[in-house]
Amino acid sequence: MKWPNHGGQPNVIQQLFQMNTDQPVLDFSANLNPLGPPNWLNNALHQAYETISRYPDPSYTNSTAAVAQFEGIHQDNVLVTNGGAEAIFLVAKYFENGKACIVHPTFLEYERACNHYHLNIDEMFYDQDNGFSLPMLELKHRLQETDVLFLCRPNNPTGHVIAETEIKQLLELGLSVGTHIVVDEAFADFLPSNTHSLTRLLETYPNLIILRSLTKMYTIPGLRFGYVMAHQSVISVLKHEQIPWSINSLVDSIIPKLIADRTFVDKTKSLLHGESQFLHRSLTSMDFYLSPTQVNFYLLRDRKRPNETEELFIFLLHHGIVTRHTHNFKGLQGDFLRLAIRSHEENKQLVAVLKKWREDK
Amino acid sequence: MKWPNHGGQPNVIQQLFQMNTDQPVLDFSANLNPLGPPNWLNNALHQAYETISRYPDPSYTNSTAAVAQFEGIHQDNVLVTNGGAEAIFLVAKYFENGKACIVHPTFLEYERACNHYHLNIDEMFYDQDNGFSLPMLELKHRLQETDVLFLCRPNNPTGHVIAETEIKQLLELGLSVGTHIVVDEAFADFLPSNTHSLTRLLETYPNLIILRSLTKMYTIPGLRFGYVMAHQSVISVLKHEQIPWSINSLVDSIIPKLIADRTFVDKTKSLLHGESQFLHRSLTSMDFYLSPTQVNFYLLRDRKRPNETEELFIFLLHHGIVTRHTHNFKGLQGDFLRLAIRSHEENKQLVAVLKKWREDK
Repeated sequence: MKWPNHGGQPNVIQQLFQMNTDQPVLDFSANLNPLGPPNWLNNALHQAYETISRYPDPSYTNSTAAVAQFEGIHQDNVLVTNGGAEAIFLVAKYFENGKACIVHPTFLEYERACNHYHLNIDEMFYDQDNGFSLPMLELKHRLQETDVLFLCRPNNPTGHVIAETEIKQLLELGLSVGTHIVVDEAFADFLPSNTHSLTRLLETYPNLIILRSLTKMYTIPGLRFGYVMAHQSVISVLKHEQIPWSINSLVDSIIPKLIADRTFVDKTKSLLHGESQFLHRSLTSMDFYLSPTQVNFYLLRDRKRPNETEELFIFLLHHGIVTRHTHNFKGLQGDFLRLAIRSHEENKQLVAVLKKWREDK
Repeated sequence: MKWPNHGGQPNVIQQLFQMNTDQPVLDFSANLNPLGPPNWLNNALHQAYETISRYPDPSYTNSTAAVAQFEGIHQDNVLVTNGGAEAIFLVAKYFENGKACIVHPTFLEYERACNHYHLNIDEMFYDQDNGFSLPMLELKHRLQETDVLFLCRPNNPTGHVIAETEIKQLLELGLSVGTHIVVDEAFADFLPSNTHSLTRLLETYPNLIILRSLTKMYTIPGLRFGYVMAHQSVISVLKHEQIPWSINSLVDSIIPKLIADRTFVDKTKSLLHGESQFLHRSLTSMDFYLSPTQVNFYLLRDRKRPNETEELFIFLLHHGIVTRHTHNFKGLQGDFLRLAIRSHEENKQLVAVLKKWREDK
């Protein structure tokens, strides 16, 4: 079966299972904000229309300044990118021909970017039986032979958050052995207020490289905007290697307003907090496993029928719910499904279908 | 003096010369359509708004099919890209660590992309004294040691068009010695109807790679859309290496309508034909040199004061006209200015200012 590489393609899934693509489905397969984009965005884009007929400012001054101010860092520590994906590829370019370590299961593009730039990849695995914790001993042991360690925090597809103390230990050790640590914070906007982004560690650790994306929180995967935060010596190299005009003018012009909309972020977090509790309560009571997520998606597995995940995927699909398979997440091998937390109405439908699945056998 | 790398940045030029950036100027420095984007485009983007909250289709089926149909080739021979710039970088990746040949003066990004992917670059030069003709003898001689030859047709910054017979000779020779020829046709949309794109040669020559861009004709440099046309074995490798979701959803969704608007293209060509004749007549009669352009821009030099190009640049700037310096075009060394053909009103203003320059001394 040729499973698609990424979520967010409900029609491709429908075609794969010979279903009618006109049939409406609920898409739980993309890790996006259930609220959709902020209401004002369509008008803001309309007003930014005239920017499309000018070349994008090669330094993206508008969005770079907004990001730097929001993050409380200097503009020389920021590089804006065409989505988080371009950020990952540029970072891989920085370590071209070097040695990378990737801890799985995690986002697929670290590996693709490392292959693109001929990095040698060392694969390690989160400890599934212990809440997907980092294999700290082994990691520390191998850090010396590694140029760059890729971590995702909160991690995709598990939603779990590596403890800050562990990241600090790795950064300290990395400093002494010459290893950079890339922390992809694509989902950090969704973190509850008692868990923090690592931005403020940048000052202390010149070997820390943070990747961000505005795609998920603001539901703008089609607009493409991400950024890298790092020591200015790293940023200046990445900037030198970036493809010119890679960021479109529309997104460059609306970023300041987007970042400033904290009401939208708070509203999102509040919704997610409630829905996360609702789902955890409803699903664990039916004996489903949920990964220890702190954000807007989670891994699901039926504890009673742990080896029937594909059947569950198909059952959900036939009941109008598209989830993300995990066949191409190393270490998961399809044993789990990844689901986004959606609106209360949609989550209730999910719970109802899972109840039906449970009762069917 | 820190000259900007590209045109289309009038404010940067104003700052460079300590001028007030609020002062309105006419921008002759960007090679765009003087008509601006088609009138219907703003509404079409507004209607495509909902696409921003979905991940772009990873295969960009919508725009790829439109391009293939328009060009009369198979979809397997097309790869759509985030502007022409991404196309250039992907092609350089294909020849990573190989040997490239670039004929100057030409677009700067071939060299940057080749450096990014560690190609060894052999530099050659158009024969300035003979209408920027190709150094065919030397080129044929060196083709055997070259993996990829980069040509731009119509060429930027001269606007001249390499004869199709010469390209065919190089393709034939390339076939026998294993050399690919990249022809960047970013400005081919502006060609008069008796001069042709090379698309129909793709069937005969598997070593031909054509790059296109919709940026220039449709005045959408801020939206980002280009494409590669080549043998399917080349396209499949480029596709494999392309950064995911690099093309934004808005542009993917409007491309079919954009490509279909031939009335707009015809109107543009008709305007350019008239303006090109007007400028040629007016400027050569005042003893200015114009490069043998067939498209929407040209090189300018004062035949009477050939060594005062920088003074001319500043004179024009102080009279509200921003042109493109040529300091970073190898082989030109700032001796010429590049100007876009603008509307009749703007071209008349240019002629008037140049008349003043002529009379001042």
